Amino acid sequence: MYSDQINIDGLQYCRWDRAYFEQLRNSGLNGVHVTLVYHENARETLTRFAQWQRLFELNSDLIMPVLDANDLREAKRQGRVGIFFGAQNCSPIDDEIGLISVMRQLGLLIMQLTYNNQSLLATGCYEQDDSGVTRFGKQAIEEMNRVGMIIDMSHSAERSTLDAIDLSSRPICISHANPSVHHQALRNKSDAVLKAMTERGGLLGFSLYPFHLPDGSQCTLDAFCSMIADCAERYGVDRLAIGSDLCQNQPQSVLDWMRNGRWSKAMDFGEGSASNAGWPDALPWFPDSSGFKNIYSGLIEKGFSESETAKILGGNWLSFLESGTRPA
Amino acid sequence: MYSDQINIDGLQYCRWDRAYFEQLRNSGLNGVHVTLVYHENARETLTRFAQWQRLFELNSDLIMPVLDANDLREAKRQGRVGIFFGAQNCSPIDDEIGLISVMRQLGLLIMQLTYNNQSLLATGCYEQDDSGVTRFGKQAIEEMNRVGMIIDMSHSAERSTLDAIDLSSRPICISHANPSVHHQALRNKSDAVLKAMTERGGLLGFSLYPFHLPDGSQCTLDAFCSMIADCAERYGVDRLAIGSDLCQNQPQSVLDWMRNGRWSKAMDFGEGSASNAGWPDALPWFPDSSGFKNIYSGLIEKGFSESETAKILGGNWLSFLESGTRPA
Repeated sequence: MYSDQINIDGLQYCRWDRAYFEQLRNSGLNGVHVTLVYHENARETLTRFAQWQRLFELNSDLIMPVLDANDLREAKRQGRVGIFFGAQNCSPIDDEIGLISVMRQLGLLIMQLTYNNQSLLATGCYEQDDSGVTRFGKQAIEEMNRVGMIIDMSHSAERSTLDAIDLSSRPICISHANPSVHHQALRNKSDAVLKAMTERGGLLGFSLYPFHLPDGSQCTLDAFCSMIADCAERYGVDRLAIGSDLCQNQPQSVLDWMRNGRWSKAMDFGEGSASNAGWPDALPWFPDSSGFKNIYSGLIEKGFSESETAKILGGNWLSFLESGTRPA
Repeated sequence: MYSDQINIDGLQYCRWDRAYFEQLRNSGLNGVHVTLVYHENARETLTRFAQWQRLFELNSDLIMPVLDANDLREAKRQGRVGIFFGAQNCSPIDDEIGLISVMRQLGLLIMQLTYNNQSLLATGCYEQDDSGVTRFGKQAIEEMNRVGMIIDMSHSAERSTLDAIDLSSRPICISHANPSVHHQALRNKSDAVLKAMTERGGLLGFSLYPFHLPDGSQCTLDAFCSMIADCAERYGVDRLAIGSDLCQNQPQSVLDWMRNGRWSKAMDFGEGSASNAGWPDALPWFPDSSGFKNIYSGLIEKGFSESETAKILGGNWLSFLESGTRPA
């Protein structure tokens, strides 16, 4: 049953307040991979951690910080939602290799090597040319492997992602994206990437952000679950999870920040366009975190067993975190 | 016996390298309160943590990080030296209350509210006027109490120190200074301060920095131990410890940095003078950490029991850390 499972959303960036945390707990989610930063540098990342420590202090009945997989089991037992942090970009480490272990100690369990653009570590999925993992990137991967910080290539380009899969001694993840074969988009991933990643034990989190889905906001629950069923055949059910990319209650300014950071004078519309610059409409069957229950039902209907839904909706994230965040 | 005790130096700022760590381990010290920063701001403090994590990685046979008192017992068992961090100034938190818990999570167990000068939190011992703990300082004390970060007033002025003792719900420390009654100096502490602090369970670490001692570099071991014996009568043996202020192998540039930071255009000579600007000569009986053994012998000679020397040379720091770093 859904409520017996450990349910984990592998990517959210919502407006974090008490009302949202109440909704989160009521949704039956036990853990959320929270995006701590998009473009914030090391100093700004400290402020984000500080803001979260205040949120933990004020909402300790609803949420708790997760530093390892056991904290998620504890959160489930206590009826709280475990929060674990990731960065969507490598901006928190500035240009300093030593900040990887420092940020890891603060609880940054996951870091993307790049966010759409070229970074100091690798190439993003919106660049025209992908020069692969950089000199600094190679050292950063080794250091992330050492300290147990999970590499996430959700917003990275193809060659860079294949490089990272090869270079990393530990499985990597794509926390929130879908297969290009189901919907062609710069942010979605080729079969070659997904095959290489999953063969090495990596994890794919299916995104519910309409721009990543066939038919966008009209994508049906059935189509979404068919995509999962197809990937279960291609890559194995143990390699699949959910990373909803839910950005609930966020104003347009946050979307602009995600897309433009401080790097662009011209407005960059990301996956949208000048005439379609706003947040996409939410999927009717995934209006918020409570949509996880609908996915559970959809998967059961699609023929998945209880134990398979338990893996896809949280169990796989739990074991991936367990092995991926253990220091080498 | 000296080698059976847990021996802790409550303040050092040496040139940290492998040769020094070998000497440290051979000295019989099991724990050292390391000054992480003097004037470094939040961002720069991250680099200091990163440098230390690299030192831990490269010298894991000799040293280990200490996040609570048990780590010191573990260090003793393993024959390594436990390192716990303090800041001599409140610069690591910039102007941000939330950075107290962030820095605490990184292992900053101790923080001075001010270093000689006025800070955002309190007044330093070199200022002409002492306006006491500031508005921000009051909140910072409360937050340090909450997260278990120990307040150190070694470089603070009289009224500010008395304020902090009153405002803090937990005992505070003066990690490295001596009683003014034994040697008059801006950095030494009045009987009123030491009485108020120790009555509330606070800890005084005796300094071996010659400027803090009667007769400076000529201070005898006997005179040093007499000072401890006098304080044991005044404040009780449970409230006494050592904070040597050892700055071994540090060049003049580091002394200049300690004294001048970035705040002074004119050269500030601290406890020295234009004609005496350098490091003072080391005490012959405390040339380096091995001098702890001499203090042990001196205390025994002065009539202290084995259990009393064990307290003064480490046991008191251990229990102070144990209670002081536990979150409220």
